[in-house]
Amino acid sequence: MTTPVHSDVVVVGAGISGLVAARRIAEAGYRVRVVEARDRVGGRTLNADLGDGQVAEVGGQFTGPGQDAIQRVAAELGVTTYATHDTGTHLLDLGGRIRPWSVSEPWIGPAASLSFLAAQRRLNRMAATVPPHEPWRAPRAREWDAETLGGWMRRHVPVPRARVLLAMAVRAVWAFEPEDVSLLHVLACVNAGDGLQRLMRTRDGAQQDRFTGGSQRISELLADGLPEPPLLRHPVRRVVQDGTGVTVHTGPGTLLRADRVVVAVPPQLAARIAFEPRMPPGREQLLARSPQGTALKYLAVYDEPFWRAAGFSGQVASDRAPVASAFDNTPPAGRPGVLLGFAVGGPARRLLELPPPVRQERVLASFARWFGERARTPRQVIVGSWSEEEWTRGCYAGYLTPGAWTAHGHLLREPHGRVHWAGSETATRWIGFMDGAVTAGERAAAEVLTATAARPAPVGARDGRSG
Amino acid sequence: MTTPVHSDVVVVGAGISGLVAARRIAEAGYRVRVVEARDRVGGRTLNADLGDGQVAEVGGQFTGPGQDAIQRVAAELGVTTYATHDTGTHLLDLGGRIRPWSVSEPWIGPAASLSFLAAQRRLNRMAATVPPHEPWRAPRAREWDAETLGGWMRRHVPVPRARVLLAMAVRAVWAFEPEDVSLLHVLACVNAGDGLQRLMRTRDGAQQDRFTGGSQRISELLADGLPEPPLLRHPVRRVVQDGTGVTVHTGPGTLLRADRVVVAVPPQLAARIAFEPRMPPGREQLLARSPQGTALKYLAVYDEPFWRAAGFSGQVASDRAPVASAFDNTPPAGRPGVLLGFAVGGPARRLLELPPPVRQERVLASFARWFGERARTPRQVIVGSWSEEEWTRGCYAGYLTPGAWTAHGHLLREPHGRVHWAGSETATRWIGFMDGAVTAGERAAAEVLTATAARPAPVGARDGRSG
Repeated sequence: MTTPVHSDVVVVGAGISGLVAARRIAEAGYRVRVVEARDRVGGRTLNADLGDGQVAEVGGQFTGPGQDAIQRVAAELGVTTYATHDTGTHLLDLGGRIRPWSVSEPWIGPAASLSFLAAQRRLNRMAATVPPHEPWRAPRAREWDAETLGGWMRRHVPVPRARVLLAMAVRAVWAFEPEDVSLLHVLACVNAGDGLQRLMRTRDGAQQDRFTGGSQRISELLADGLPEPPLLRHPVRRVVQDGTGVTVHTGPGTLLRADRVVVAVPPQLAARIAFEPRMPPGREQLLARSPQGTALKYLAVYDEPFWRAAGFSGQVASDRAPVASAFDNTPPAGRPGVLLGFAVGGPARRLLELPPPVRQERVLASFARWFGERARTPRQVIVGSWSEEEWTRGCYAGYLTPGAWTAHGHLLREPHGRVHWAGSETATRWIGFMDGAVTAGERAAAEVLTATAARPAPVGARDGRSG
Repeated sequence: MTTPVHSDVVVVGAGISGLVAARRIAEAGYRVRVVEARDRVGGRTLNADLGDGQVAEVGGQFTGPGQDAIQRVAAELGVTTYATHDTGTHLLDLGGRIRPWSVSEPWIGPAASLSFLAAQRRLNRMAATVPPHEPWRAPRAREWDAETLGGWMRRHVPVPRARVLLAMAVRAVWAFEPEDVSLLHVLACVNAGDGLQRLMRTRDGAQQDRFTGGSQRISELLADGLPEPPLLRHPVRRVVQDGTGVTVHTGPGTLLRADRVVVAVPPQLAARIAFEPRMPPGREQLLARSPQGTALKYLAVYDEPFWRAAGFSGQVASDRAPVASAFDNTPPAGRPGVLLGFAVGGPARRLLELPPPVRQERVLASFARWFGERARTPRQVIVGSWSEEEWTRGCYAGYLTPGAWTAHGHLLREPHGRVHWAGSETATRWIGFMDGAVTAGERAAAEVLTATAARPAPVGARDGRSG
């Protein structure tokens, strides 16, 4: 048996949430150690090298107004933002027909447009009554948690084409199908994201900006700023609490010992850690009722963004499988040209049943349909298939199925003895976003600091090396 | 590294499903080895010793008409059945009032009774259109998979008291709340269980009979009949396939090697096994969308079944937490007296948040409310808390949340290379029942035998010892 490595706090997971928690704990003078299953930091953010110092982002990448937390942390680290490419004609590929498109003024014919806008207004009004920190206290919580968004849409969005458009928006924003999810959950997320329009939009919305150097840079700088580097390739298998502390058992056999632990991983991964004592049954059930969305992200790299010359913005919303939404993801330098295609929800599930070369062929066929044959032959294709990633198991995030919020919601952030919960799924603003990852990490850090405030920070711990 | 123990087939899980699969494979002349995480066989069935050769059943116990498969296997093994105690007055504890009660003629006032019966008829009619072997092919599959049973009840069962009664029945039959589950899933289960009445009833229903010697006896005899005994205390951690076979890695480090593997464990446990190669993403998502019900089973043991003298059958249906349904579970000898109380669904979840002594006090208070103060002081209380069992994680069974059947149902029984799937959750008759465990095990065995039929059974394998 190995001798444990001692710290004050162990953080499980080197995504944004865990690294922010670790940063705040280290700033308060405590020894903190981050352990990570992967061979890299960043979790659901990942930069791919395009050469010449340019990067493409294989995971989460966007930010926008209202996402103050991630932007504050980025600013702390000296990471700037720039505007997502948003000039030129956007396209809507709906019912087999391609037409120009504006997310802020969605026009799909008079009846369908009215029906879509009415549904959007109604969902926003309902969402305003759902407190994101405790959705189970909404006045109509039980009713809305007993149905899915898809069921609600079937009854309240009478025009089929409006329903199709709303489903497209849901897929693009959350990577699940409307029928997969508790209506109450969606409403909490809508409220936590400042309304549907903000979630859907590029300009003035959640897709407005990107981080210079790529979003993974934030995690890399957070990790670099820690007194001790994250322990990579150390999947956590067991977390054992006793009267005086916690022992964290990792895959390679390394033991870590700490007063407190912060678990900052998605629900499907937290469920796979063996906690001793076990989590309360209600929290186990919460995780068992928290599947994760399905998203594949395709980045097709060309010598230049040739679609710009033809007047296209690169942005597409589509009801045609496999790509539901596309963006111009060209780096700010303007070269190489990068088209980004999201396969999400049901179409993504069907794509996953095909061999990777066939998937890619179909994605490129979507690009060619919108931007011409030249799109079919990129010089490089980069794929993020997040459901197939062992240490993610589904993107963009975990979501709750019907009945779960009202039954178990009160246990979501409740510490399990010395174990605290972070991760964007535990956020109360921008749930499932990078911004939520930050606030969840800071909240967990605050819990740990409050719990350990009784005893003084160990002298010199800030600069010390443990173990 | 240990040398692997060789068999033709390894079966993971020594519940009824795995043991039946193993029996059929052994009968065909192949070497089969069952591995089990627990120190016992029987899975979700368990006998507790009451002394004097009497047993009480802590897990699944009932059978009834239509459950031909479990009764056929029991007969093969020489296990007989006897009738569940069903004489005397049944009680309904509804809205704070206790009254006599008949499941076959439910009377709760004119409007509520009509509303309840109409809902029952309508659900049965809908269920008849849902093929249990492929619910996703029901004509209205997408619509019904987009809503929960609870949502449907809010719209189609107008009388509140009828809705309460229906929710009580749902809890008692499946141990989940109506809002937890896909309507399509419930309809498939109703069809697979020959209609709601049969599922709810004692006489002429799924609670009609019990197995002499206790239901776990079936698993014990199945295990005794195998050429090689199950390997107990060997939780399976990894299942690794290569070009020539499968290696099964167990907790203590023992390796087993086989041509084929049958996995016969509940979905939440299957999800915790590391498969290499990974399961297809769709099957992983299916498991991630398959939580398990919440059931605690309390057996209060008294010197005699004193309630019988007072004219009570011991059967109660109740909307009062924590006990939703009660039975007289006295062994056929007539002594000791045993009251059985099921805490299921939401009330069970709330019970699990209390310390065990408080839970027990509340359960006994329910018994005392119905059968008098004497019920408060049993000589012994036996508890099955199946959500807290590491190797079960929830009873009676796994169920599917909205959207899962239509998205992933076609993958439920699809073998993963050399890995086949059993367990009652994969059944097409009596899904989640002991009967379904048998047919699922036999189906998986048939798949394995078909796959291996190309080569002759090894000579003498039936009596041989492997390793």
